[in-house]
Formats: sequence, structure tokens, C-alpha cells
Amino acid sequence: TTLRAYNFNAGPAAVPLPVLEQAQKELVNFKNTGMSVMELSHRSKEYEEVHNRAITLLRELMNIPDTYEVLFLQGGGSLQFSMIPMNFLQEGKTAHYILSGAWSEKALKEAKDFGETRVLASSKDANYTHIPTDYSLEDIKDGAYLHITTNNTIYGTQWNEYPTSPIPLIADMSSDILFKEIDVEKFSLIYAGAQKNLGPSGVTVVIIKKDFLETARTNVPTMLSYSTYAENNSLYNTPPTFAIYMLSLVLEWVKEQGGVKSIQKNNEEKAKYIYDAIDNSEGFYKAHATEDSRSLMNITFTLPNEELTKKFLQEAKERQFIGLAGHRSVGGCRASTYNAVPKEACEALANFMTEFKNQN
Amino acid sequence: TTLRAYNFNAGPAAVPLPVLEQAQKELVNFKNTGMSVMELSHRSKEYEEVHNRAITLLRELMNIPDTYEVLFLQGGGSLQFSMIPMNFLQEGKTAHYILSGAWSEKALKEAKDFGETRVLASSKDANYTHIPTDYSLEDIKDGAYLHITTNNTIYGTQWNEYPTSPIPLIADMSSDILFKEIDVEKFSLIYAGAQKNLGPSGVTVVIIKKDFLETARTNVPTMLSYSTYAENNSLYNTPPTFAIYMLSLVLEWVKEQGGVKSIQKNNEEKAKYIYDAIDNSEGFYKAHATEDSRSLMNITFTLPNEELTKKFLQEAKERQFIGLAGHRSVGGCRASTYNAVPKEACEALANFMTEFKNQN
Ligand SMILES: Cc1ncc(COP(=O)(O)O)c(C=O)c1O
Ligand SMILES: Cc1ncc(COP(=O)(O)O)c(C=O)c1O
Ligand SMILES: [Mg+2]
Ligand SMILES: [Mg+2]
Ligand SMILES: [Mg+2]
Ligand SMILES: [Mg+2]
Repeated sequence: TTLRAYNFNAGPAAVPLPVLEQAQKELVNFKNTGMSVMELSHRSKEYEEVHNRAITLLRELMNIPDTYEVLFLQGGGSLQFSMIPMNFLQEGKTAHYILSGAWSEKALKEAKDFGETRVLASSKDANYTHIPTDYSLEDIKDGAYLHITTNNTIYGTQWNEYPTSPIPLIADMSSDILFKEIDVEKFSLIYAGAQKNLGPSGVTVVIIKKDFLETARTNVPTMLSYSTYAENNSLYNTPPTFAIYMLSLVLEWVKEQGGVKSIQKNNEEKAKYIYDAIDNSEGFYKAHATEDSRSLMNITFTLPNEELTKKFLQEAKERQFIGLAGHRSVGGCRASTYNAVPKEACEALANFMTEFKNQN
Repeated sequence: TTLRAYNFNAGPAAVPLPVLEQAQKELVNFKNTGMSVMELSHRSKEYEEVHNRAITLLRELMNIPDTYEVLFLQGGGSLQFSMIPMNFLQEGKTAHYILSGAWSEKALKEAKDFGETRVLASSKDANYTHIPTDYSLEDIKDGAYLHITTNNTIYGTQWNEYPTSPIPLIADMSSDILFKEIDVEKFSLIYAGAQKNLGPSGVTVVIIKKDFLETARTNVPTMLSYSTYAENNSLYNTPPTFAIYMLSLVLEWVKEQGGVKSIQKNNEEKAKYIYDAIDNSEGFYKAHATEDSRSLMNITFTLPNEELTKKFLQEAKERQFIGLAGHRSVGGCRASTYNAVPKEACEALANFMTEFKNQN
């Protein structure tokens, strides 16, 4: 059997083992073409099948209506921070941002270069321990859009229910896309770098409502205009073909698991192991997030002091637990339990946490 | 032995077989980490070694001085068309473009959105059969930069010697980077999507002179500013880690071949097979490029008529020659003989061409 680490990386992150095995099997000779999938022309029939299969699967798994486009871009979530205001922050309008963590702040910062912005709500003063609830959607009626970050990778908080926004709702779902069933129609634009729940880094998925796309500014450079991707099935220029291929395999895997509903059930069970280890530790472990805002994707917690934290991380490493150090900006510990992280890994981590607590 | 097609794709294109085999071998378990290379955090020691190895190898192979940065971006050559003027077309200055094919035209088109541009020379009226020579560098002294496309992928022409420009010289080397030894110091900025001579699609290499970088505009979105990449060793956000890994393997392979000098000798021999088949065909095959502008990377040619072209492509396909149809915008045939295309493939193609000519 293959040596597998317990991979709790925050992104790039774990990829399902059967997906890696299939990619390995056909890496040199894809479907008897005598070529690797990465050697195929992006204009070939064989590649277009891979490309369109990824789109079809995402539509099916997320129940995306025909009134939306599914696009593949490059540049990660970070380039979206600029592309969104570049395309949708119209002159004379205001873009509204709800700040729930470091990534929302970065998204806001880029928007400021393109026009008027407003922080509708923020939990910064509470050290981003919860999703802001203290705002009204009444007075944003004329805004360009409302931007939220559905899962806060660094702080370990997550939205439970999404706002019903009177203006186009844009969501950064980089770290929780496809983790549970959602109603896509609440959103005008959803974006996510693939490297957490969807596969490897190098491709960004954008799901955009067609009638919202029609409102985009037109004086945008070709490669930074969403229309370019929509009009060319994301094949205007050479797409990151291998990353899209991996995405297609990950989506096949999600489907084989029984779809997003099953994935969600799994994710709930996985997170429960670890949150239970925290909650039953008599205060040895403390969750960063308040209970109502706990993330099922990134579980952040602290130990009584720096010394114990270091010892915990060291012993974890010796047992092949990878990626448990908290983000350099907040410290502590973080376990990222994305879709591809197996239940066994979470159970093993919970057991180790309890064992470590008992011995320290 | 592995089934291998004769891959003459224009990009994405052939990758060296030993590179694919190594990637396959370690795809599921990279260096005994218990993870695939695509599952590594981009902040991990293991990944940073891969990343820095790619930079070091490119520096070594191309003899890039310390006065230059080597950067990894996303978005392909096409995003560079916009990033260059966005960063370097200063107010009140003019950007000069030499048009040698469809890609130069596209580069120019994007620049027009950012400021003054001028076509210094163009061979469009000659259907881009040659590299323009009819221009003077005297009167561009105050220009922002001079942009050239060193190899014209679609038309099959290539610069032999590069101009000694009085203003910063910028080169799109997407389809011929690393094909022969060049003097990097003639250039202020070189860019290339990896998917022809460097590996898979999804990563763009930029080689930029540090003192030129210092002249860049500052009001540029974070992800579209070259400084962001230079200041963060191309790790400001998540890079396309797997594509960079493949790049590092391709560069190792180039080194094992004896470096760029050996690659160049190979490329000359490879192209000679096919150009000889054209030149010895008594006019059955006609090269699109004039003799002084012939590309060693993309060999473009026509047959006496449409019917024979179709028949040629059909029979070629049956013999596992892939990617020989000319670009949809010019028709005819094109054989792309990038670094990774084996000599045997070129010899086999030349033999087939001669055989086909004799029988038709
Ligand atoms: C919620 C969220 N948004 C955006 C980003 C930035 O993504 P990228 O590194 O792909 O630019 C991240 C990265 O972790 C993230 O977690
Ligand atoms: C010379 C040249 N420049 C730019 C491009 C565009 O590259 P990309 O598809 O990576 O945007 C190409 C693509 O073939 C090319 O050949
Ligand atoms: Mg965060
Ligand atoms: Mg479409
Ligand atoms: Mg061309
Ligand atoms: Mg540097």
C-alpha cells in the first residue's frame, strides 16, 4: 500500500488518492493517444472532452442553472480580487464588503483602486472569531455588488446561511466551494481557486450569472474580462489544461462519493471528531471561532501556551500529520479538513489530540 | 515500450518522455513525503526546493545575470500582452512594436488601451513570410520600449539576430525560449508561456532586468504588477505548483542533454530533415517562410492544393503524426519541432513527406 501522510494542508491540499492513482496511471499515455494529457492541444477533440466534462460535472454537482456560465481562469483567488471591481464596480456606484477575515480585507483593498467601496460590516474588532451579523441590507440598494468570503481559511470561521442581497452577491468560496449543497441562485458570481476543494493550484473556477455578466464594463483588457472567457468557453487562449484535467477527475470522484450531499455528511462527521476533541479537552484546546461560526473546512485552535503548541506540532509531525501549524499571521494550530481529507485522518488527529492532552 | 505519437503540436506540445516517466513515478508519493507534489503546501520546504530549483536551472541554462529576476506568473503569453503596457507604458511615451505575425498584432492591440503605440515595422503586407528588416532604431530614442516576437508560431518565421535597441527591448519568446543560446542582456524583459519549450501550460516565465523593473508604474493592481512577483519570489499568492514542478523537470532534462548548446544543435538537425524534404520536393511542398526567416520551431508549408493537403493530413494521422494542420487562420501544414520533439519524429515525418510526394 502507498505511504500516505495525514494531509491537513490549507491549500494546496489533499487530493483524493484514487484521483492521484488514475492520473498516475494515464500520465504518459492518455486514453491510448500516445500522449500525456498535458501534451494534447487545447484545440483537440480529446482535450475538449476533458474540459467540457469538468464544466458539465460542476454544473451537475452544484445544480448550476443554465442562466449561469462556468469559467476557468488563472491567477488564483487573488486575481479575482482585482477582476471583480475592474469588471463590476461601475462609475458612481459603491461596492459593499463584509469583512470576515484576512482574505476579505485583501479583496477590499484591491477594489479601492477601482472606485468607491464601503465596509458594510466587520468582525475585525473581535479578532475575526465570528461572521459579522450586525448589518442591514436595507441601505445598500444602489450598490454595485455585495462581496462576502464564505469561509475564512485563516481564522477558521464560515457562513452558515448566506444573505439575501438586494444587489448582486459575490462570494469568494475559495476554501469551501462544493463542501455542501448550496443555492447558486443566491449569487451573481462565485469564485474559487481549485487548490482546496477542487484539485491542484493553477485554475480558478468562476460561476457567473449571465445577466450580471452583461452589466460588466467594456473597457477591460481582454484577459481580465469575464466576457472573453464566457464567449470562448474558457478557450480564448491556452488554458491550464493539466489543472483542468485534475479538476475533472476530482469532480468525478465527488460524483462517485454520492455527490455533494454525501460529501457534506462526511465533512460534518470529520469536523465533529476534531471539535469534540477540543470541546472535551477541559479547556486544554480552545477553538478560535465562536460556536455559531465554526468552519467545517479549517479548524483553528490554540493550546495553553507557546511551548505546548511547539511540542504538539513537533509530535504531530513525527506521526505524519502535515500542515497543522496555524497561519503565520495568527499562530496556534489549524487543521484543514477539505473534501479530500479522509475521515480516518480526522479520527486519527482527534485521537492524537486527546492523547497529547492527557500526557501534558 | 510506451506507445508514443509523433507529436508536432504547436502548444501545448510534446514533453520529454523521461520527464513524463519521472512525474508518473513520483506522482502519488513525492520524495517519500506521503503526498503528491501537487498536495504540498506552497510554503513547505519540499515545494520551495522545487520552485527554487526551477529558477536556478533557468538562470544556469540561459546564463541569466544577477541583474535580472526570474518570475513565474499565470495567464499565459496573452496576459503579458496587457501587463507589459500596464507596467511600462508611461504617460507621454510611445511603445514601439515590430509586427511579425498574429501574436505581435495581439500584443499591440492590448497596448493601445494603455497609451500611445507605434508600429515601427511590419511584414503584414508580405503575409508575414519574413521578419521585417525595413526600419530604423534611430528615431525611437524616447520610446517606452520596443516589443518583438522572436518566433512566429503561426507563420513559421523566426528572428536570427535581435536588434540592439536604444530603448528597453521586450521579447515574446513564447515559442522559442531556450531553443538556442542567446544574450539575455540584449533584453529588458523576456516572457514565455511554458507550454511549448518549457513544459505544460499554466505557468508563464518572465525574465526581467531589475533596473527596468524599478521604472514600472506603481498604480497597478497587486497581481498584475511584476514587482509583486519579484518581491515575493513568485510566492505572493499560490503559484501553479505542479506546472512549476514540471518546468523544473524539463529544465533538468535540458541540462542532462548537455545544455542549450546541444539542444540547439539538435534543433538544427531536426528542422533540416523537414526543410530538406520541402526543398527537395521539386515544388510539391512550399515553405511559407522566406529562407532567411525560416523558423527552427514551427515549420510551415503548403501542398499544391486543398485536396492534397487534406489527403496528406489524413494519411499522416493514420501514421500517428499529430498536430500537422496549419493554424486555422492560415491553413496549410505546420510541424512544430520544439526542444522535446525527438529527432526520430522529424526524420519519420521527412520520410513520410517524401513518400507522400512520390505517390501523389
Ligand atoms: C478564502 C481565500 N480567498 C483567496 C485566497 C487566495 O487564493 P490564491 O492563493 O489562489 O490567490 C485564499 C488562499 O488561501 C483563500 O483561502
Ligand atoms: C508567440 C506566442 N505568443 C503568445 C501566445 C499566447 O500564449 P497563451 O495561449 O499562453 O496566452 C502564443 C500561443 O501560441 C504564441 O505562440
Ligand atoms: Mg481568513
Ligand atoms: Mg459558454
Ligand atoms: Mg504568428
Ligand atoms: Mg528574487
